[in-house]
Amino acid sequence: MSGGGTAAAAPAVRRLALIGVGLIGSSLARAARARGAAEVIAGYDANPQHLARAAELGLLDEVAGSAAAVAEGADLVILCTPLGSYAAIGAEIAPRLRPGTVVSDVGSSKACVLRDLGAVLPDGVALVPAHPVAGTEQSGPDAGFAELFVNRWCILTPPEDAAPEPVALVERFWALLGSTVERMDPQHHDLVLAITSHVPHLIAYNIVATADDLESVTKSEVIKYSAGGFRDFTRIAASDPVMWRDVCLNNREAVLEMLARFTEDLTALQRAIRWGEGDRLLELFTRTRAIRRQIIDAGQETAAPDFGRR
Amino acid sequence: MSGGGTAAAAPAVRRLALIGVGLIGSSLARAARARGAAEVIAGYDANPQHLARAAELGLLDEVAGSAAAVAEGADLVILCTPLGSYAAIGAEIAPRLRPGTVVSDVGSSKACVLRDLGAVLPDGVALVPAHPVAGTEQSGPDAGFAELFVNRWCILTPPEDAAPEPVALVERFWALLGSTVERMDPQHHDLVLAITSHVPHLIAYNIVATADDLESVTKSEVIKYSAGGFRDFTRIAASDPVMWRDVCLNNREAVLEMLARFTEDLTALQRAIRWGEGDRLLELFTRTRAIRRQIIDAGQETAAPDFGRR
Repeated sequence: MSGGGTAAAAPAVRRLALIGVGLIGSSLARAARARGAAEVIAGYDANPQHLARAAELGLLDEVAGSAAAVAEGADLVILCTPLGSYAAIGAEIAPRLRPGTVVSDVGSSKACVLRDLGAVLPDGVALVPAHPVAGTEQSGPDAGFAELFVNRWCILTPPEDAAPEPVALVERFWALLGSTVERMDPQHHDLVLAITSHVPHLIAYNIVATADDLESVTKSEVIKYSAGGFRDFTRIAASDPVMWRDVCLNNREAVLEMLARFTEDLTALQRAIRWGEGDRLLELFTRTRAIRRQIIDAGQETAAPDFGRR
Repeated sequence: MSGGGTAAAAPAVRRLALIGVGLIGSSLARAARARGAAEVIAGYDANPQHLARAAELGLLDEVAGSAAAVAEGADLVILCTPLGSYAAIGAEIAPRLRPGTVVSDVGSSKACVLRDLGAVLPDGVALVPAHPVAGTEQSGPDAGFAELFVNRWCILTPPEDAAPEPVALVERFWALLGSTVERMDPQHHDLVLAITSHVPHLIAYNIVATADDLESVTKSEVIKYSAGGFRDFTRIAASDPVMWRDVCLNNREAVLEMLARFTEDLTALQRAIRWGEGDRLLELFTRTRAIRRQIIDAGQETAAPDFGRR
């Protein structure tokens, strides 16, 4: 077995099947190999270039010709594809899954996973949805890296009636990859991630588009002076478009609820600016610093002044 | 003369007076020294701890007891304080400025500088407002560094009737520090920076506050799962509160105009999510990638996947 001191004595999984080998899928392949979390890693991607590239990079022990083929005989199948693809993939792989297989995923919204996959999986196959809260603004098999999940949270949202063994297997798998595993109710997960991830992405996409549409300020000016703050939003707004479309469509209620609160607060802020309420502005701009300090203390961020990009 | 190959044969300025030695003022002191842009660097800060610290760090040749004292006899006086302090500082230093002195600043909003400083300066003293589009989310003299302005834009907004010599002096000073200097009409500057800097900061402050106020999601959950995107906003929302209060109050019209466009676009985005308009979402999330690419190509950002914080 390869892997570092954090890996346990035996692999968590004998045969791991990855459906999708983009940023997350390819990082999973790298991390599972480096930390000895799976004996055999098989992969498939609907994008033939991504699959060929993952094979070329030596990330896979076996390259499959379809989602059904890769899932056959696997102990753990992980969907690493946009949420909108789950129902079709579920229908395709269901007849080929042997009893005892555990199906999981890495999607950013979780109630929809039970809805789309839970219904089609055969008896004897367990569904344990997972969400590693990790990623970068880049996409594709070249963008992945083995340490992506280290010191990051992985949230499991097993159905209420899930058997303990499959949940323990997925938990052990992610712990081997360096993540801290937490369990959560899927609805609550979707609310938490709406504010910590989905709405931030939507706001970033939105302001980049607003800037792009201006006629009073040229595009070249927006680009030239982006170091004043705008460039940080373009980083987030460079994330995978299909993935984010599917997150919006599949976590609609929670996203709309959080967006409504955000715009309510923004309207109050606009009003404070219009009426010159300096004390109110100062209070708002001061209390946000404390939250950043707590995020840094929790090990989820570096204190280095990256906004200055030294 | 110290400084690297980019510095010209002679210092741009004999006696440089810095009013304010926080992140920007202390970076200016470091950069001017490193690149031989001034013979003597004198400094003052209304915060005695900042002033003592800048002296302790050896950033200043002379430490003054007041804004008036530091400005006396200076060739170039640069205000590195929040915009709200300009009128009072202008009134204090005006009687002590000798003819031929050039007064400049580093503020993020520019029409207000002509309004607040232009009226109080005596004849024979030139006002050449400047805005280095550079900074980090940190504050104070310890946060500064000499390379902060390298490859960044510095925008000058001289009055229409400005004499060429003082403008050339300020231009040369910033070029020595490694910046690319541009001239702009102050009103247009305020519009450009509203979208590239001011509104991004306001949105970041706003979402951090929205998250902080939720009752359905705990603060500890917001902090734990912040790597999904939220933490990037807290970085921007950690910038100096007084500085940002003063930017809002002094660039009110342009900020409100850009905020109105942003919320209009956000309302359309909310509607697209509510009605499940996947094509529209995909189009929006796709076109924003191109802008990031152009910012990277323009040298204003790194292509490294910092969102993953490797």
